[in-house]
Amino acid sequence: MKISVVKNILEANERIAQQNRQLFDQKGVVVMNLMSSPGAGKTSLLERTIEGLKDEVKMGVIEGDIQSSKDAERIAGKGIPVVQINTGGACHLDGNMIRDTFDQFDFDQLDLLMVENVGNLVCPAEFHVGEDFKAMILSVTEGDDKPSKYPLMFRESKVLLINKIDLLPHVDCSVERIREEALRINPHLEIFEVSCKSGEGLEAWFQWLKEFVAQRRAGFQAS
Amino acid sequence: MKISVVKNILEANERIAQQNRQLFDQKGVVVMNLMSSPGAGKTSLLERTIEGLKDEVKMGVIEGDIQSSKDAERIAGKGIPVVQINTGGACHLDGNMIRDTFDQFDFDQLDLLMVENVGNLVCPAEFHVGEDFKAMILSVTEGDDKPSKYPLMFRESKVLLINKIDLLPHVDCSVERIREEALRINPHLEIFEVSCKSGEGLEAWFQWLKEFVAQRRAGFQAS
Repeated sequence: MKISVVKNILEANERIAQQNRQLFDQKGVVVMNLMSSPGAGKTSLLERTIEGLKDEVKMGVIEGDIQSSKDAERIAGKGIPVVQINTGGACHLDGNMIRDTFDQFDFDQLDLLMVENVGNLVCPAEFHVGEDFKAMILSVTEGDDKPSKYPLMFRESKVLLINKIDLLPHVDCSVERIREEALRINPHLEIFEVSCKSGEGLEAWFQWLKEFVAQRRAGFQAS
Repeated sequence: MKISVVKNILEANERIAQQNRQLFDQKGVVVMNLMSSPGAGKTSLLERTIEGLKDEVKMGVIEGDIQSSKDAERIAGKGIPVVQINTGGACHLDGNMIRDTFDQFDFDQLDLLMVENVGNLVCPAEFHVGEDFKAMILSVTEGDDKPSKYPLMFRESKVLLINKIDLLPHVDCSVERIREEALRINPHLEIFEVSCKSGEGLEAWFQWLKEFVAQRRAGFQAS
């Protein structure tokens, strides 16, 4: 009984996510669904990415939080379109919440829509929102045992950003072990080691993202 | 429709949690439900607490993880009874999962059962398991904006442990701001600033916990 209810919710979400996806395809907008534990650095990564790519990629942001508009205020300071979703308790974003923001964007003016999910290493991985790809952040302060304890998010993600590497001298965490465990779960993961604080490693991420957006948009135009 | 389904699940859980509570009361076992984001230091706090109180308080542990038995192995190394629950995907522990462990404990030999929930700052706060109180950990690496963004867990918890204070020189986080925001949400919070790595601040936590267990158990015996 409980299982079938959950399955129905997931199926209903899947239909809406696919409708979102169709609209994004028509408009030529690439969509990233960014996930992590609370405080791993999602908003900081978005701020850095906007700074790094704003002259080359037209970006917009959806901020998902249970409550508060602090993250949207941070992003608005960067001068790009941003919409805050407050889930009012829900532990993840779903397709419907994303659809409800559509009238607040001019998609013809966007190349890349970055969706910051609720801080949660579990539930967001189960709900598509219409994204092209999922990216996740793991902070080195969370420890190197996380891939085997929270495997679904590592399996669903195309990109893993290992953040806060500036803190490595002060924490017991092996980046090599994160890499090994994460790649065992998902051998296709693109992994970047970064510090949103010092800026280390971000250039490789910007380059990858810029190329991914260009290739994906070329695919939209061809089809 | 979706709301009523969720409500039914919560109500069914509440009944089982109350049954668990009755059994714990009869057996004189105090139960702590420990919650936090992934990697904030739940297992480290349990290890330290076991070391600090093992001569004075008879303890047992339930480890909740989506997958893996790494945490139970760490706790088993401390020589106290421990049971690992693998939720197989579920983002929180519920009353039923706790009940399923009962035949693996001798509750007459326990004063305090410590339940480590799944690493998640959202969902576990909604599900009672039959605990006397909820305790939560916030690591300073997660940032000082977390109380206002994840208010339910701060509201539901009796105790807030602010962990990893040894990292304060290296992160942008104000413990004062955490305290202010957390106390605005829940003025009754007991707050401890600790480092499970250096041991700083833990003595006050041990003392509080020891006294809470003694007082609560005196109440069981009186009633």
